[in-house]
Amino acid sequence: MKAVAIVSGGMDSVTLAHWLKAQGYALHLVSFDYGQRHRRELECAAWQAEHLGAAHTVIDISGIRPLLKGSALTDDLAVPHGHYAEESMRLTVVPNRNAIMLSIAWGLACSSEADALACGVHAGDHFIYPDCRPEFIKELGQALLTGTVGHRREGLSLIAPFVDKSKTDIAAIGGELGVDFTHTWTCYEGGNMHCGKCGACTERKEAFRDSGVADPTVYEESA
Amino acid sequence: MKAVAIVSGGMDSVTLAHWLKAQGYALHLVSFDYGQRHRRELECAAWQAEHLGAAHTVIDISGIRPLLKGSALTDDLAVPHGHYAEESMRLTVVPNRNAIMLSIAWGLACSSEADALACGVHAGDHFIYPDCRPEFIKELGQALLTGTVGHRREGLSLIAPFVDKSKTDIAAIGGELGVDFTHTWTCYEGGNMHCGKCGACTERKEAFRDSGVADPTVYEESA
Repeated sequence: MKAVAIVSGGMDSVTLAHWLKAQGYALHLVSFDYGQRHRRELECAAWQAEHLGAAHTVIDISGIRPLLKGSALTDDLAVPHGHYAEESMRLTVVPNRNAIMLSIAWGLACSSEADALACGVHAGDHFIYPDCRPEFIKELGQALLTGTVGHRREGLSLIAPFVDKSKTDIAAIGGELGVDFTHTWTCYEGGNMHCGKCGACTERKEAFRDSGVADPTVYEESA
Repeated sequence: MKAVAIVSGGMDSVTLAHWLKAQGYALHLVSFDYGQRHRRELECAAWQAEHLGAAHTVIDISGIRPLLKGSALTDDLAVPHGHYAEESMRLTVVPNRNAIMLSIAWGLACSSEADALACGVHAGDHFIYPDCRPEFIKELGQALLTGTVGHRREGLSLIAPFVDKSKTDIAAIGGELGVDFTHTWTCYEGGNMHCGKCGACTERKEAFRDSGVADPTVYEESA
């Protein structure tokens, strides 16, 4: 069995890759370079791929950057600080980002004759990000199957094993699987260390704290 | 009303753009640069956009090129000649190409607050290309709606006005709308003139002949 997995280099997708390996999949990790400010995550994805003995492909989709307005990840906007502020979190949304990445990765899964395409969407993002919800994954998975009849391995499917898990659940799973979270990246600020203050860092800290898994991150605020 | 339309520069999508304008839409044309051999079509798309007074954006997705095997459009393979040879036509398929382009264009339609995203898929391609069939358009359209709730104009929809039309029907529609087909590109060979022999050129000639619309194309074979 072979799985293509979208791995950003964050703790969720890196845990996903370890989980897939534990399920017996041969792994091909895919990361996307879309001009994101937090490019350190791509280095983490590469480190994890090597550690897992997985193929790793970085796909440059930075061509979409100038088209997408209102995204703090790619535009020259201030990154919002704080926690659970819906409007602030919205600024970090690249419109339709998951459909774009999943469609490209699905094409790779077709041409590489994979049995599964996996992504690490999780329940903690359902409120803000509609493209992280189970109904979206189900509907997109069906459309992708229909659109590639005869051009893929017949049993290929889109899976999202963590879609009903919280980030805390995922940290716990990663802890059990022995994930080295030192080589995962969460912060949106683009610095050399995790800032410890942005919404993403806040959620990272909480996931470690609430799961009881040791947090190896050195945060800038306490460095 | 505003429509984002995917326009390759071929006769189908160029006719689509004219049809949308006749329906009263303000137009934003989107073309994709994916390293295709027949780059002349991008110049045709630009010419038509200017002629229509439409915005035009070329999105570079050439980063997906090395990932897609078995495509005569992007790989260094011979372009298949002949007509209606299923295996030959399959070589021209970039796996999941329409889902990729539609997902990116949908993101643009979201950020630009459009009312419609239009594509020119048609019935002539149903047999070979599963991502040109009505059920795919319907399923993907639903998934994209679900994935962007709250991040788009509420009434945005994916439309494919020609999905049940033949290429001959489309040539007839274009003829009625006064499309200047001189500035459309079909040939897959990448030369300075239409070769007149590849499968795409063969279908182009037939559409003009069967619709009774004058074919302004100078084909290499008869030049």
